[in-house]
Amino acid sequence: MTPPAISRYPVPALAELPEDIRARILAVQEKAGFIPNVFITLAHRPAEFRAFFAYHDALMEKESGLSKAEREMIVVATSGANDCLYCIVAHGAILRIYAKNPLVADQVAVNHRKADITPRQRAMLDFAMKVAVDSPSITDLDFAALAAHGFSAEDAWDIGAIAAFFALSNRMANLIAMRPNEEFFLMGRVPRVK
Amino acid sequence: MTPPAISRYPVPALAELPEDIRARILAVQEKAGFIPNVFITLAHRPAEFRAFFAYHDALMEKESGLSKAEREMIVVATSGANDCLYCIVAHGAILRIYAKNPLVADQVAVNHRKADITPRQRAMLDFAMKVAVDSPSITDLDFAALAAHGFSAEDAWDIGAIAAFFALSNRMANLIAMRPNEEFFLMGRVPRVK
Amino acid sequence: MTPPAISRYPVPALAELPEDIRARILAVQEKAGFIPNVFITLAHRPAEFRAFFAYHDALMEKESGLSKAEREMIVVATSGANDCLYCIVAHGAILRIYAKNPLVADQVAVNHRKADITPRQRAMLDFAMKVAVDSPSITDLDFAALAAHGFSAEDAWDIGAIAAFFALSNRMANLIAMRPNEEFFLMGRVPRVK
Amino acid sequence: MTPPAISRYPVPALAELPEDIRARILAVQEKAGFIPNVFITLAHRPAEFRAFFAYHDALMEKESGLSKAEREMIVVATSGANDCLYCIVAHGAILRIYAKNPLVADQVAVNHRKADITPRQRAMLDFAMKVAVDSPSITDLDFAALAAHGFSAEDAWDIGAIAAFFALSNRMANLIAMRPNEEFFLMGRVPRVK
Amino acid sequence: MTPPAISRYPVPALAELPEDIRARILAVQEKAGFIPNVFITLAHRPAEFRAFFAYHDALMEKESGLSKAEREMIVVATSGANDCLYCIVAHGAILRIYAKNPLVADQVAVNHRKADITPRQRAMLDFAMKVAVDSPSITDLDFAALAAHGFSAEDAWDIGAIAAFFALSNRMANLIAMRPNEEFFLMGRVPRVK
Amino acid sequence: MTPPAISRYPVPALAELPEDIRARILAVQEKAGFIPNVFITLAHRPAEFRAFFAYHDALMEKESGLSKAEREMIVVATSGANDCLYCIVAHGAILRIYAKNPLVADQVAVNHRKADITPRQRAMLDFAMKVAVDSPSITDLDFAALAAHGFSAEDAWDIGAIAAFFALSNRMANLIAMRPNEEFFLMGRVPRVK
Repeated sequence: MTPPAISRYPVPALAELPEDIRARILAVQEKAGFIPNVFITLAHRPAEFRAFFAYHDALMEKESGLSKAEREMIVVATSGANDCLYCIVAHGAILRIYAKNPLVADQVAVNHRKADITPRQRAMLDFAMKVAVDSPSITDLDFAALAAHGFSAEDAWDIGAIAAFFALSNRMANLIAMRPNEEFFLMGRVPRVK
Repeated sequence: MTPPAISRYPVPALAELPEDIRARILAVQEKAGFIPNVFITLAHRPAEFRAFFAYHDALMEKESGLSKAEREMIVVATSGANDCLYCIVAHGAILRIYAKNPLVADQVAVNHRKADITPRQRAMLDFAMKVAVDSPSITDLDFAALAAHGFSAEDAWDIGAIAAFFALSNRMANLIAMRPNEEFFLMGRVPRVK
Repeated sequence: MTPPAISRYPVPALAELPEDIRARILAVQEKAGFIPNVFITLAHRPAEFRAFFAYHDALMEKESGLSKAEREMIVVATSGANDCLYCIVAHGAILRIYAKNPLVADQVAVNHRKADITPRQRAMLDFAMKVAVDSPSITDLDFAALAAHGFSAEDAWDIGAIAAFFALSNRMANLIAMRPNEEFFLMGRVPRVK
Repeated sequence: MTPPAISRYPVPALAELPEDIRARILAVQEKAGFIPNVFITLAHRPAEFRAFFAYHDALMEKESGLSKAEREMIVVATSGANDCLYCIVAHGAILRIYAKNPLVADQVAVNHRKADITPRQRAMLDFAMKVAVDSPSITDLDFAALAAHGFSAEDAWDIGAIAAFFALSNRMANLIAMRPNEEFFLMGRVPRVK
Repeated sequence: MTPPAISRYPVPALAELPEDIRARILAVQEKAGFIPNVFITLAHRPAEFRAFFAYHDALMEKESGLSKAEREMIVVATSGANDCLYCIVAHGAILRIYAKNPLVADQVAVNHRKADITPRQRAMLDFAMKVAVDSPSITDLDFAALAAHGFSAEDAWDIGAIAAFFALSNRMANLIAMRPNEEFFLMGRVPRVK
Repeated sequence: MTPPAISRYPVPALAELPEDIRARILAVQEKAGFIPNVFITLAHRPAEFRAFFAYHDALMEKESGLSKAEREMIVVATSGANDCLYCIVAHGAILRIYAKNPLVADQVAVNHRKADITPRQRAMLDFAMKVAVDSPSITDLDFAALAAHGFSAEDAWDIGAIAAFFALSNRMANLIAMRPNEEFFLMGRVPRVK
């Protein structure tokens, strides 16, 4: 049986990709054990690929007042609001692993108000959701609400920029009908047995 | 009188910027006669700046089945849907210049259904607007509607990716309260006198 | 080349109009230097024309706690919410002139929360926008919010009635596909040279 | 017990009103047996009163391809969409009387798709509802859908203009919290006994 | 003339119904003087009929901190939000009778914020409307707002459960195009003459 | 550490429940290996509990033109639209088991248009979603679209009634903040090893 398509667009073979992109993909494969489809499907457009992952890394790999789990929470919550299957499933897996919590990704994807998170994280997600779905309404009051939970202005930029970047990412995934790898559905749900 | 702030965040001095970013900004200034605020305000975060403009250029400067004016139409129409003042005003100016048409930017920003554009451009903007505001609903029918106007699958990627990139851009501009330069408001409205 | 239609409906010749309507239109032409399309397109229905402009004048020409520029702000902001190209462009021009400000019309049309206006004007537009898009939710609290900025109950009527009148006007313009005169796009954007 | 207020604003005494307005109100009272509150509450502003009823009459009293009952259907359906109690109750009463049908007003106010009306009336209300709630989306297709049911372009103007006028009327009633007269609730519900 | 259908589905004859269902329907007919269509149309599915009315009675007939009129207010207000003609008309009639008030049902169906009800009832309906149209957003603050008006946690369950049950009921009525009996339109509008 | 609350309301002890309810719960526990929280939290109200599960069984356990997996698809898709964590997680688990498919529940909860389902199932979910979120707009055309895929009128009732019942269920779960059992998150995701 033909496996289901992972994109509406042609998916390049590794061998035909520019060296830097192939290297990046092989490094991810090495680490994850498989190639997440976002890499191989977006590689259809090398220049956009490079900018996409440079942007991703600038937000998700940097030093920040937000933990890596918190950043993934923002991705999962806003991708839930945008009905993006790829991002909910793939980043949900990463969130489960970073947070060492098998439940929080599904909670946050559906309704962050009821998730097992701290009040500070609740405020962080309120801000992120506003950037994701109603950015013209953001005012100084929203920054003040973050500050009341100890977030700096730079933290606010981080929160908003992650929500903004995944506004792009969610739309690209919906545009090309990007399919999540099956591996993601189960990752982080079961404690690893030694 | 203090001029109004152009960002909620500190705006870097050119002298303190990394060399590549300063060079990019000076080149823009050379060409435009002023520094568009999107450059100097986003330079507050150099790594994000580099990715942002690399992404922008990968979409807006490349060879494409869409003319440059058509790409700017997508920016202006989707930024209108997202109530993003900076992008409507700045890209509206660029659209007027590329299209050599002083009216089309305001038309497209408010309601692309009534703009002085071709049926093909109308179909292009219908698709772009769906990516901008309802991407989960995109199906093969939307690609077929584009194809009926002669757009290839790669053109569809271009249209969708521009809408997706400005989903990010609009949210960043609203997040930091980016202010359009005054120069943009008038650009392309008056025929240049020789 | 045929100029684009300014209405979906027949546009009457001045000579065939009832005397009072022709006189009104000639007076406007005398003052503005051209006939704004709202006059000549709505003249297709003389009785409605008379009521429309009587209503308009009762609100926009009267003595009021609101300046003429403030009244035009209400028109532009609510027409932005209703995606009415004619009213945004034509009243945007009038607003620029009354306010002696080439930027405020575009600002208010897109997002009044970020416009260069006073807190009092921001409260005025918050109230107007609620009348325009969610009038069943208006309660005494909304009147109290106005009063806190010094608006009287009669001012509140003025604000709400202007928003209500342009709810009609925007729908008529969208119904007949009323096209803004080209003159409006540029008016008030450039300082007049003596 | 004090009767409930019929407006947030002062309600003028008949004696203090300008002669033409008092005459109009007395004529209505003569005919209806009571003064509908829309007359006496809007009389707080004589100039607006005159324009409002001139506009109303220009649309609702004229010769038209629409029957008077059909015009009231448009009022009731669009006022339902705008949650305007006064207009639903008062014009619902008038609709029941004109249509000699005690059920149709409640049907149309809640969901015109299920009302006991003809397919032609259903098409008329589809158009009116689009003018009321989504006028920027109106295209030639909407006029064609009307034409398929025998409506002329002038009929389309009538339908759209009534929806537009009650967009104003609904907002004014919600603004001033206009209260329907108790008489309206029962009118046209019971067959008159000779 | 054929009377209009009261359901998209076949309507069973009383004689062919299971004994318990026939008995229930006859009892209602005895009391009301006619068979409300909700009974005979839902009897098309006996097992669902039994569960539906058991649920209804568990909420609407029980001892409660809410009066019967208040419970009907919740039905009418939330059915108004769901555009359900059957429930607005039938429960509007019951509300008029329980409340001995010929006006309150129409008021509450259109806009509970302007109805002649107490502040406590206003808070009750605010909560019910949130359950009806935006239940994921309910937080402890909503329960606190009820408590401030003296509602216990069990009262909050009653309010929410009635809103939830009529979310089902409204959808069933819209699904099968359930038609309200003509009797309901007039019930409770005229004082009974002895 | 205290385990997180599974309801905003008191959760009864099995021993204090009425015999029939305790028996039902013990039977479920016997089958599932644990007590799903929907049973023990709703048991706070015995009469409502009985009606709720009678309704559930009447729809979900009956003979039907829809398979059990298809019925669970309806639950998961509409609960996704209603942001109901409990129903997405618990019925997602059941769907995975019935469909013997570890991926389909997450797919359907986020966006049924992209799920690995048949065109017939896609039509089924289109209908169910319309009942869930826009039931007043249902017309004969929606029934015709189902019939084109071989669904009978009785199948349409089943689809619509399940969507309607979970409109209730989702609102109750959101009202009481019902927490999904941890067991559900993993059920059906891993092939059982013999």
